[in-house]
Amino acid sequence: MKAVRFERPGKVSLAELPDPQPPAGWARIRIKAAAICMTDFEVLRGTHEVKYPLTPGHEYCGVVDKVGSTSDEAWLGRRVVADNEITCLKCSFCRRGEWRCCAEYRQIGFGAPGGYSEYVVAPVHNLHPLADSTSFEQGALLEPLGVGIAATSIARARLGSTATILGVGPIGLNCLAALKASGARRILCLDKRANRLALAKSWGALETTDDPEHLKKLAKELHPEGTNVVIDATGHLDMIPLGISVTRFGGTFVLAAFYKNSALKFSPDSMQGPNVRMVGAGNNAGFIEPAALAVGDGVLSTEGMITHRFRLEDFARAFSDEQAGAPDYIKGEFIF
Amino acid sequence: MKAVRFERPGKVSLAELPDPQPPAGWARIRIKAAAICMTDFEVLRGTHEVKYPLTPGHEYCGVVDKVGSTSDEAWLGRRVVADNEITCLKCSFCRRGEWRCCAEYRQIGFGAPGGYSEYVVAPVHNLHPLADSTSFEQGALLEPLGVGIAATSIARARLGSTATILGVGPIGLNCLAALKASGARRILCLDKRANRLALAKSWGALETTDDPEHLKKLAKELHPEGTNVVIDATGHLDMIPLGISVTRFGGTFVLAAFYKNSALKFSPDSMQGPNVRMVGAGNNAGFIEPAALAVGDGVLSTEGMITHRFRLEDFARAFSDEQAGAPDYIKGEFIF
Amino acid sequence: MKAVRFERPGKVSLAELPDPQPPAGWARIRIKAAAICMTDFEVLRGTHEVKYPLTPGHEYCGVVDKVGSTSDEAWLGRRVVADNEITCLKCSFCRRGEWRCCAEYRQIGFGAPGGYSEYVVAPVHNLHPLADSTSFEQGALLEPLGVGIAATSIARARLGSTATILGVGPIGLNCLAALKASGARRILCLDKRANRLALAKSWGALETTDDPEHLKKLAKELHPEGTNVVIDATGHLDMIPLGISVTRFGGTFVLAAFYKNSALKFSPDSMQGPNVRMVGAGNNAGFIEPAALAVGDGVLSTEGMITHRFRLEDFARAFSDEQAGAPDYIKGEFIF
Amino acid sequence: MKAVRFERPGKVSLAELPDPQPPAGWARIRIKAAAICMTDFEVLRGTHEVKYPLTPGHEYCGVVDKVGSTSDEAWLGRRVVADNEITCLKCSFCRRGEWRCCAEYRQIGFGAPGGYSEYVVAPVHNLHPLADSTSFEQGALLEPLGVGIAATSIARARLGSTATILGVGPIGLNCLAALKASGARRILCLDKRANRLALAKSWGALETTDDPEHLKKLAKELHPEGTNVVIDATGHLDMIPLGISVTRFGGTFVLAAFYKNSALKFSPDSMQGPNVRMVGAGNNAGFIEPAALAVGDGVLSTEGMITHRFRLEDFARAFSDEQAGAPDYIKGEFIF
Repeated sequence: MKAVRFERPGKVSLAELPDPQPPAGWARIRIKAAAICMTDFEVLRGTHEVKYPLTPGHEYCGVVDKVGSTSDEAWLGRRVVADNEITCLKCSFCRRGEWRCCAEYRQIGFGAPGGYSEYVVAPVHNLHPLADSTSFEQGALLEPLGVGIAATSIARARLGSTATILGVGPIGLNCLAALKASGARRILCLDKRANRLALAKSWGALETTDDPEHLKKLAKELHPEGTNVVIDATGHLDMIPLGISVTRFGGTFVLAAFYKNSALKFSPDSMQGPNVRMVGAGNNAGFIEPAALAVGDGVLSTEGMITHRFRLEDFARAFSDEQAGAPDYIKGEFIF
Repeated sequence: MKAVRFERPGKVSLAELPDPQPPAGWARIRIKAAAICMTDFEVLRGTHEVKYPLTPGHEYCGVVDKVGSTSDEAWLGRRVVADNEITCLKCSFCRRGEWRCCAEYRQIGFGAPGGYSEYVVAPVHNLHPLADSTSFEQGALLEPLGVGIAATSIARARLGSTATILGVGPIGLNCLAALKASGARRILCLDKRANRLALAKSWGALETTDDPEHLKKLAKELHPEGTNVVIDATGHLDMIPLGISVTRFGGTFVLAAFYKNSALKFSPDSMQGPNVRMVGAGNNAGFIEPAALAVGDGVLSTEGMITHRFRLEDFARAFSDEQAGAPDYIKGEFIF
Repeated sequence: MKAVRFERPGKVSLAELPDPQPPAGWARIRIKAAAICMTDFEVLRGTHEVKYPLTPGHEYCGVVDKVGSTSDEAWLGRRVVADNEITCLKCSFCRRGEWRCCAEYRQIGFGAPGGYSEYVVAPVHNLHPLADSTSFEQGALLEPLGVGIAATSIARARLGSTATILGVGPIGLNCLAALKASGARRILCLDKRANRLALAKSWGALETTDDPEHLKKLAKELHPEGTNVVIDATGHLDMIPLGISVTRFGGTFVLAAFYKNSALKFSPDSMQGPNVRMVGAGNNAGFIEPAALAVGDGVLSTEGMITHRFRLEDFARAFSDEQAGAPDYIKGEFIF
Repeated sequence: MKAVRFERPGKVSLAELPDPQPPAGWARIRIKAAAICMTDFEVLRGTHEVKYPLTPGHEYCGVVDKVGSTSDEAWLGRRVVADNEITCLKCSFCRRGEWRCCAEYRQIGFGAPGGYSEYVVAPVHNLHPLADSTSFEQGALLEPLGVGIAATSIARARLGSTATILGVGPIGLNCLAALKASGARRILCLDKRANRLALAKSWGALETTDDPEHLKKLAKELHPEGTNVVIDATGHLDMIPLGISVTRFGGTFVLAAFYKNSALKFSPDSMQGPNVRMVGAGNNAGFIEPAALAVGDGVLSTEGMITHRFRLEDFARAFSDEQAGAPDYIKGEFIF
């Protein structure tokens, strides 16, 4: 099969690899769509720790075309998305749903071969059916939507919460979708790119701006008690003191980005006095299924997220900084 | 001023009473709209305990036209809704926000004179401004919407929860509005009246039925794990075992109605085995303000709730069982 | 091996059965102690649904003496307790920690052979080590202690909660232990048996009584706001309205007993008005491990729980109503 | 009356002031004991913002000897402790129990005259009776115990939580008391002073150390999954990365100290990956009453906290750094 390979930092190619064969209890998915995550750019740059070479791609969906056990044949031909987490299922962590803590934890698209390829194999228990109403293009977006759902849940957002999102790239937009669907109101968004702000507006943000100072002013005026839920999806350190400064007494500030091991200088008193909660939302489990159900039932927006569609052969362009930096780029997706 | 009076059970009249004068710290509201609650019918029938005679009306809004303290003059001319709870503010209950437990607790429209009248007086700290975008007709609906928000919050509904509402009279519909706004999906509704079911559908219910057996079938099919949140807004005892029977393991069944002191026969094992939570949602505090904010910010539906509008002089018709039983009746409102 | 058998309702015997052999991934436990649960009496009476014949016993501990896979040999010789739940590990329920909802769910001591026998086999991932400081007698009590921990957690008891326990048989006593350890105060206990009340007192109950009317008086006097947490561990229907009547506004009433499919007559308004939560605590998962850790670290009492010790050959006496009804009986345990 | 005065930074004296007279709705407390908080040292040093001159003292108790309203005469002669927060009671924040957010918020001992004096006046609704079993010495400790209860509650500590406390000065010790009472296990404590560690041990800490590296080792060994609850009560910036490094996946790190506006350098990824919650616990409301109830009912330790007792005339010694730095000093208290 054809598969994108990150050979080493800086080196991407399209390789011809043997078709993977699903072992007992596993299924093979014929990939139909695989969305491109900025983390993959980090992997390619060498700023996100993985073992090379690697077939990346952790946002994908497709059709089951082979299973390792005859007892799983009912899955054949089904349109599916898959959890990426491969775990032992048996340890105390797994049995509590804390997949990431399992000693055997591996992740499809990082440790195990991922979805920028014609086939992926995954444990059958990781599969979730796509609703008939969910297109493959949407199906490949369920993983990052799950991240948005998880961040929103961790933030304890609920009907009537005010919210501010710092950075409306794909993760910030998915947080916006989940916040809107959860009844948040007066959502303010900050981003440098006009096209992202325009999409945020069309998804229901009340106000958007590219200016941090203007954001503070908007927050003061529109969230007079402070903001209940502030989410940082930029990964820029200076967003953290900004975000804390607008968070309401007792409110939540969510870290929903990677900060590339950089170190922040900030005053803990700025959280201590107003009882602010700062919460990491980096590693969640079991959020693909809720995302699949919510999208299948029409609860969450995905419209407009994918701005660029590629064939696998377009890999070089798909992973070029020029492409990702284009003014109209929000998120790309390989279509098979 | 003119005011509807419930003289005694069964006897309603329109009385001429002295205009109320706001004491220090209170405000007088010129009523612009006052919605009719089925509880008022109970009061009129004598099946809800109050002291007669009484000016009812606990769902109202209007314009502040007089204040008892000069320091409150900024409220003059403002469009407002008011909390009905009058409490001491000082006891441990009040200081924790448990208004209903205060020894001095009284309620406008039950113990204190209510809103089916030209004026109501209320403590200034009970007032909440109406958003410019909120009409008076909507403003009178904020109290029951608050009940729906409270029930939804008590139910721990969140993005992706499945839900079933038994009874989509006004309270059930308000629960539906709050559930939809909170991201619930696949909401099923049961009611005997076609017009209510039609409104529920237009507000986003997935399926509606007037047949309890069909409801069970729908629940089984559409909520295969059981229903996360089931709300009874009928006050009919037989809805309780029905509701529990469809509730998911660990799910919540909310009592959001009065049962008129009747006694239910049911099996506690039906809750004990599947760890079901049955929760009373009869008395909540502080939910007018969130309702006012949510409606002001466009998060909650009110469209179609009011089917009948009356002048105060129409009181006899407004409180007639014929009117309330009309096939097109959902909720009435006095317009001033 | 020797094993107690419930042949059919009313018929118990001591059978000679083949020693069980652990399949791959399973371990065999040489039983050292197995505590007797009143549910086993129900099974013997035929009032708890199971398939006969059956080796009962779901509260046990021992030493691993054989494993089915060489990779599990590190468990050999270890003192252990085991989760009773046998599940698929893979379905959505299992992956969320909702073991009881798994389609393949079976329970050691009910569906699978239990601990009133010389050996039990269990999945290796179900095993939890006993702390060195935990005796086998205590180890056999970890399962019911886990029930008490679960009920206390479901009740949302915390530092400073007032509490009332209806019925201080073994489950009620375990709830008492968990409530005390969680910082509950002014715990009141009701039971008909003086010896249980004496043990409750020695475990830190503030007041105990055998008279429901006196209990109401105590609750009124000592919990002037109402009781935060009320637990029914009797399974008697009349305890439910009693318990609800003393529950605080917004408090929790926990169903921690079986009611043998009997039907209660009660007024839902008694819960609806004061926003009471009634919660089933019948089926919990993963509470053996916390019980083992809490007892191992000295956080929970077990002293005095076991009043009668038997050899397996004493089975007839151990399961006689005379024995269980003896004035000094709280709980029996088979010692091997 | 005699009262300690902080005239300006660095200048403390004992002044003769007019006896305060309680206005309507207020009570005057004849002070019997007033504990000394390290924050008062900060105020005296000028590193905690207040308006000078000032009568400090926010941890005190006594006997009501005068009331401003005849309707409050039942309080005369009662042994009491008082909430320090003076608020409007009426705004949305007050009505939700968020006292600190009230625009009129003032605090006895900071903005309003405090308890290092013969009398304090406080609103009657701020008073809480001392239990008969609570001594005045204990009564003066209820405010800081309330801080420990609040931090423990914010931390979501519960039966079985593992815990680590960085700094067991008075606040850390109060957190320890609250954690023990809440069922935490394997509590590890770090402090530089041997006497504090000894008291922590006697209050139930499992292990104590004065060496941060040893603490890490202990945490690794005794909390193999990571620590559920880590509390910083030192106010030293370098404790924050240390604390985060031992916090369990999904666990809580509580900021329970002031950091004097200093700025920390830390990696947000260290929280983001393991979904750590960092929570400020600086400003809580309504925790004196639970502390008074818990101590009155014997749920919380206070034994050994007060190491030094002073008369008001000893003020210079009481506020000397020599005294506070003495090897046997934990906390001082003025006894009247």
